[in-house]
Amino acid sequence: MIFNEAVEKAVENTPGAIGALLMGLDGISLASYLRPEAELELEVVGVEYASLLSEVRKASDILESGDVKEVTVITDRFVVIVRSINRDYFMALALGPEGNIGKGRFVMRVQAPKILKEL
Amino acid sequence: MIFNEAVEKAVENTPGAIGALLMGLDGISLASYLRPEAELELEVVGVEYASLLSEVRKASDILESGDVKEVTVITDRFVVIVRSINRDYFMALALGPEGNIGKGRFVMRVQAPKILKEL
Repeated sequence: MIFNEAVEKAVENTPGAIGALLMGLDGISLASYLRPEAELELEVVGVEYASLLSEVRKASDILESGDVKEVTVITDRFVVIVRSINRDYFMALALGPEGNIGKGRFVMRVQAPKILKEL
Repeated sequence: MIFNEAVEKAVENTPGAIGALLMGLDGISLASYLRPEAELELEVVGVEYASLLSEVRKASDILESGDVKEVTVITDRFVVIVRSINRDYFMALALGPEGNIGKGRFVMRVQAPKILKEL
């Protein structure tokens, strides 16, 4: 399955990554992958970020900034990178605070068009 | 004025930066700097991102992710990097789509504690 492969690759190829998922804006997940030792409720994170991505799109519409490609949130405990696949789906990658954000962004930019082809 | 200096420096030291502001979560700006040739309603952008930062904090509280340090949004036309200064103030830096995000993040990490001391 390309979707399962995509989320697993995103995690395995990003130093410090904890988990990744592919989800609809409606909060229904298509695929997810969590490192075995990770303590993170990935689906709950995904649902919150689905809602957040909708808010960011509204703001971008108001500001006439065009389509939202990516949102990155850095908190004390995690880094979450969200990449729009199309209007309905996004991919999210969660990293620990020392995770490699640049590599994570790169990996998702590479995976996004492959996922899009299969949707 | 340290605040005016901080926003001007953030723009001048970041390749591709358009403008920066220091604003309260209430949408009232303390300082802002826009490149002379830039076409951007910086205050309007700030108010939208103030509201967005509040949403991100709510999500982070729900997910017990700790304090929100930084939010980066990449759209077709702009990149906006928002850095929390404390619970009440944030700094935002707007870049063109080809702007240097890594440098922008670095510059804001350097400016944030200097601003915090003066608040």
